[in-house]
Amino acid sequence: MAQKPSIPKGTRDFSPTEVARRNYIISIIKKHFESFGFQPIETPAFENSETLMGKYGEEGDRLIFKILNSGDFISKVDDDTYNSKNSKSLTRKISDKALRYDLTVPFARYVVMHQNEIDFPFKRYQIQPVWRADRPQKGRFREFFQCDADVVGANSLLQEIEFIQLYDAVFTDLNLKKATIKLNNRKILSGIAELIGETNRLVDFTVALDKLDKIGKEGVINEMLNKGISPEAIEKAKPLFELTGTNSEQLERLKDFLKESEEGSKGVEDLAFILDAFGELGLISAQLTLDVTLARGLNYYTGTIFEVAPPAEVSMGSIGGGGRYDDLTGIFGLKDMSGIGISFGLDRIYLVMDQLGLFPDKIGRALDVLFLNFGEKEAMASLKLMGKLRKAEVKADLYPDSSKMQKQMKYANKRNVPFIVIIGDRELADNSFVVKNMSKGDQKTYDFEDVKGFLEDLKLFLN
Amino acid sequence: MAQKPSIPKGTRDFSPTEVARRNYIISIIKKHFESFGFQPIETPAFENSETLMGKYGEEGDRLIFKILNSGDFISKVDDDTYNSKNSKSLTRKISDKALRYDLTVPFARYVVMHQNEIDFPFKRYQIQPVWRADRPQKGRFREFFQCDADVVGANSLLQEIEFIQLYDAVFTDLNLKKATIKLNNRKILSGIAELIGETNRLVDFTVALDKLDKIGKEGVINEMLNKGISPEAIEKAKPLFELTGTNSEQLERLKDFLKESEEGSKGVEDLAFILDAFGELGLISAQLTLDVTLARGLNYYTGTIFEVAPPAEVSMGSIGGGGRYDDLTGIFGLKDMSGIGISFGLDRIYLVMDQLGLFPDKIGRALDVLFLNFGEKEAMASLKLMGKLRKAEVKADLYPDSSKMQKQMKYANKRNVPFIVIIGDRELADNSFVVKNMSKGDQKTYDFEDVKGFLEDLKLFLN
Repeated sequence: MAQKPSIPKGTRDFSPTEVARRNYIISIIKKHFESFGFQPIETPAFENSETLMGKYGEEGDRLIFKILNSGDFISKVDDDTYNSKNSKSLTRKISDKALRYDLTVPFARYVVMHQNEIDFPFKRYQIQPVWRADRPQKGRFREFFQCDADVVGANSLLQEIEFIQLYDAVFTDLNLKKATIKLNNRKILSGIAELIGETNRLVDFTVALDKLDKIGKEGVINEMLNKGISPEAIEKAKPLFELTGTNSEQLERLKDFLKESEEGSKGVEDLAFILDAFGELGLISAQLTLDVTLARGLNYYTGTIFEVAPPAEVSMGSIGGGGRYDDLTGIFGLKDMSGIGISFGLDRIYLVMDQLGLFPDKIGRALDVLFLNFGEKEAMASLKLMGKLRKAEVKADLYPDSSKMQKQMKYANKRNVPFIVIIGDRELADNSFVVKNMSKGDQKTYDFEDVKGFLEDLKLFLN
Repeated sequence: MAQKPSIPKGTRDFSPTEVARRNYIISIIKKHFESFGFQPIETPAFENSETLMGKYGEEGDRLIFKILNSGDFISKVDDDTYNSKNSKSLTRKISDKALRYDLTVPFARYVVMHQNEIDFPFKRYQIQPVWRADRPQKGRFREFFQCDADVVGANSLLQEIEFIQLYDAVFTDLNLKKATIKLNNRKILSGIAELIGETNRLVDFTVALDKLDKIGKEGVINEMLNKGISPEAIEKAKPLFELTGTNSEQLERLKDFLKESEEGSKGVEDLAFILDAFGELGLISAQLTLDVTLARGLNYYTGTIFEVAPPAEVSMGSIGGGGRYDDLTGIFGLKDMSGIGISFGLDRIYLVMDQLGLFPDKIGRALDVLFLNFGEKEAMASLKLMGKLRKAEVKADLYPDSSKMQKQMKYANKRNVPFIVIIGDRELADNSFVVKNMSKGDQKTYDFEDVKGFLEDLKLFLN
């Protein structure tokens, strides 16, 4: 008996409509990446295990998909390891490659390997799938695309400004207006921890603070107390829970709060520079807000932290994020290379756009014109005409055999084709073709040589 | 010490220029796939092992990359299997997923899984990487892209005609003129084997015949003798080694040769239909030739077989191939679905185009305009202007800091930027910007508000 086919959990097939919509989003992201001067690179789906392992913490190591060595892999395992029956130590002996887990580590590896061919600062973008053995959940997959843009080798805050402009340009072009770009700085978080005397608990403190919009002030305070942060420290930090007003008002209060911390003050200064710049440059459709609770992958970022929330009418997590990390390539031996980058969350952007009905209608249209098939001679004439249409990038197809008209029309309806072309024996005889508009029902006859006339009518409708 | 990074053997990093060139080829292939009415699908990088195993013969099974199960995978292995220390039986217990080996089997799986959403005939294209644990060689990689178009559920020879037109359209558009599309039919090969009394040795016979252009007539005969094909059979088959003349002359002789075989005669009839059609339809730049020695994956194809050779001045293997297989989806339980498809060999097309210098110059250009950086105020003015250029899809970038002019110019030269823009204090003062043409060396001053004028001059040069 034939097997009933299925796909691994957490993975997806994409139908023609889904691919077209995903490619629509990707093409807009790419277009702006390129006009901002980013260059594409691609790296292999799998890397040597030592490139990936240990770069994403213990949980990351667990979630990396490992590839089994080829051939008689067991013969290369020593007896002690084999007899230990320990999955972890055996893995090291039977697998030396793993699927990439994100695009940042492969990028760092790429920069170090190709440093002599690269002109720094290097602005690269990369749009490729990554794989994680996470428990699949609604909206969380084991295979998903990342769309990343990073600059390596540039320290100036102009980079921050450009990334905000890039977010603004992409989301505006996607018609996803009023996205909120949230800004914070790791130095501000460090400064706060320093001033309240909890530098050692920086991560616990910020992880709790990050939940303010989800669990509220009381929830955050409870979590902090549970993590061993002193009531005095929390008391000192309280003003942060109540930062309101415009960006400049918040910044003013933050500046005052952090005035005794050198690092914190530097963070405030950086943010002020960025916000001032946008006072002058403006934004197209996005809004920029200071969010001192924003932490994201804190151990990673060393300066600015970005996150993008979708328009307020949609209830969905962040649709983008990123930040600055001072030592991107150090792990692979190239020191003092500052990196800064952002990512677009393709799957979530897709969901938001679907929910708001933002995909243009014509994306879904796989076929512009279907030629009905009335037999061999007629088909040959159709192919001649189709060649001219296709050359003009009209999506044209011929029904594959001269089935009953009813069957062919049913197919045309199912495919949702806007136009059908009829070349039967009458048309063959007087050198013409008939075009039927499927939504209006009316039809028009063209001279067989008048492809230009038809193309003009067609383009009028299709665009 | 930091590790010295490397990538797994047989895999590749693609630099910005390489990605741009690959995408240029892919975009042309895609454009024609779509104008021929093919729709894109995408399937996961890994499939359940049972979907792939046993579909590519014994060697294929060996060359499929297997993914290690997550977590404590050893605890799920029974003692007998573990103690056997047999790599093959252990693999089944510790790996249930594998990287896709081609796009055809996942496509068949997709069609069966989604048969209720699909309107047949279904024309799909798919451009995704595949992985094979082959020994890496010059031009053979462990990760490479396949670009496939297939029709499922259509029996008529119009499909064959359209695929030949598709090859012609793509290679013409790539400027890869005079590609040779070779045609054969499995039924002709079966008919020959039948007539010479070697039906049981069909594969050996055709594998040897397939080498005619490499090892010559004597070589082929020797190989056939070695494989146990009788001298009488070879004697009978000899006319095939010497088929010359036009397609119709060859076809005439083949028709005569195969007149006693029903299957062989059907093959001749099919080929005659296709060649006749092109007598009427013509080809744009490719040429179509009958090649009775063409076999390819013989166990796979059941009707027409295609192969494309690059222009004669390039010494390179085939740059495309395909054919008809009568029972594409039967392995997954959906019977009587005829499939026909072709593939474009991206890596080889790339090599041929590179060798013939067919990549347009502008593909390599990652940046149209570089703004020099003279300090904070000047940079802010630059960003304003850049916003307008980028909106017009000009690739613009700002040097990230106000380094010495020499350093900035060196970067501009290295990046091979056609234009630099200068906004210094003088330009700030009189509200202007200076554009320098890097190849000619001349420069022109524009009013800061005259972006349109600059854009017109720029587009004139860039296109």
